Amino acid sequence: MVNGSLMLTIAVLGGTGKEGKGLAYRWAKAGYRVLIGSRSSEKAIKAASEIIQLLEGSSSVVGTTNLEAAQQAEIIVLTVPYAGHRETLEDVKDALKGKLFVDVTVPLVPPKVSKVQMPAAGSAAQEAREILGEDVEVVAAFQNISHELLLDEEEIECDVLVTGTSKKARAEVLTLVEAAGLTGWDAGPIENSVVVEGLTSVLIYINKQYGSTYAGIKITGAQHQ
Amino acid sequence: MVNGSLMLTIAVLGGTGKEGKGLAYRWAKAGYRVLIGSRSSEKAIKAASEIIQLLEGSSSVVGTTNLEAAQQAEIIVLTVPYAGHRETLEDVKDALKGKLFVDVTVPLVPPKVSKVQMPAAGSAAQEAREILGEDVEVVAAFQNISHELLLDEEEIECDVLVTGTSKKARAEVLTLVEAAGLTGWDAGPIENSVVVEGLTSVLIYINKQYGSTYAGIKITGAQHQ
Repeated sequence: MVNGSLMLTIAVLGGTGKEGKGLAYRWAKAGYRVLIGSRSSEKAIKAASEIIQLLEGSSSVVGTTNLEAAQQAEIIVLTVPYAGHRETLEDVKDALKGKLFVDVTVPLVPPKVSKVQMPAAGSAAQEAREILGEDVEVVAAFQNISHELLLDEEEIECDVLVTGTSKKARAEVLTLVEAAGLTGWDAGPIENSVVVEGLTSVLIYINKQYGSTYAGIKITGAQHQ
Repeated sequence: MVNGSLMLTIAVLGGTGKEGKGLAYRWAKAGYRVLIGSRSSEKAIKAASEIIQLLEGSSSVVGTTNLEAAQQAEIIVLTVPYAGHRETLEDVKDALKGKLFVDVTVPLVPPKVSKVQMPAAGSAAQEAREILGEDVEVVAAFQNISHELLLDEEEIECDVLVTGTSKKARAEVLTLVEAAGLTGWDAGPIENSVVVEGLTSVLIYINKQYGSTYAGIKITGAQHQ
């Protein structure tokens, strides 16, 4: 249970995918109220009940549409494939004003997903910032985590690099990283998100090249104070 | 002594800086013939003699101009600050045809060196490729290593991500990484160099933020076969 976080509601848009479900599970377990959003509220309700079954004891996970989830939450997390990034953001844009938006999107371009190919804005997170405008704090995080592991309770040997539009917003997301049982690092301004998003392609390449499944990164030589 | 590498000559252009000197020292120690290049041959000769003093036993380190060093080497490594990147490449371009070029350059833009700011080509390495053309294999590596440590014989807790224009060229550079006493990873095509160059800004940011000096990264969840 995270201190003082009981009242906070996190919407996980595209939360019916593995990535979203894994994060929703970890945050619900930590005591957050979690809303699973999807284009189809039926799918979202199904995903929410799957997560509740995995959790012991009381927890709050509710499935609904992306828009309703965004409207009812203080923190909105986007975990859709890149193909649905812009459309989903345009759909929920009005509900995000004054809130904290967390982009988990990696702009992979199939079939060459192991080659870094960023959008014109510089990265998916910078594209989100262009779409959402100045009223929304945009933070990018969790792009390098193999989300299958989040549901498995396994020790995850991959740090989370957090970039975003303000230090305060990054600090809030670092709390969410910790609540999910992961180690996070403030990795600087939103312009640095290209490194973290692109790193996913590098890790996919390393997995192919070295026959691994969950290549990740750890920061060395620095410590949390 | 690296097997069969005795005949290979490595030119380290801009080799009078800390980065270049550190790499030159490690490679000379491993048995490579090393040419230190600089705009001033006097400075290069001085740097070469400093390196020879650090080495025990026989070693081959010679100082000369950047152009002469490039002409006489099979592998050319560039370790100048970004401000001198294009000019140095233009100066030595003709001497690089058919050879292997290794770019260590990080396109930092002072004073905001902790913010990723890539050149129009996408990265310094991709800019090098544009300048040098198709006749030269371009590999980017060593951008995240604190080069002071190379001269100090300290254990370096930072892996080297190697990106480049061909798998064969990356494999050759991975041999140089190992010869320098470091752990390297084939990190894919030259387009992925943006991640590794940009990671330097992220590590600088982490150093500032967490009070560390030598933040680095380690790849987890994968193994060399």
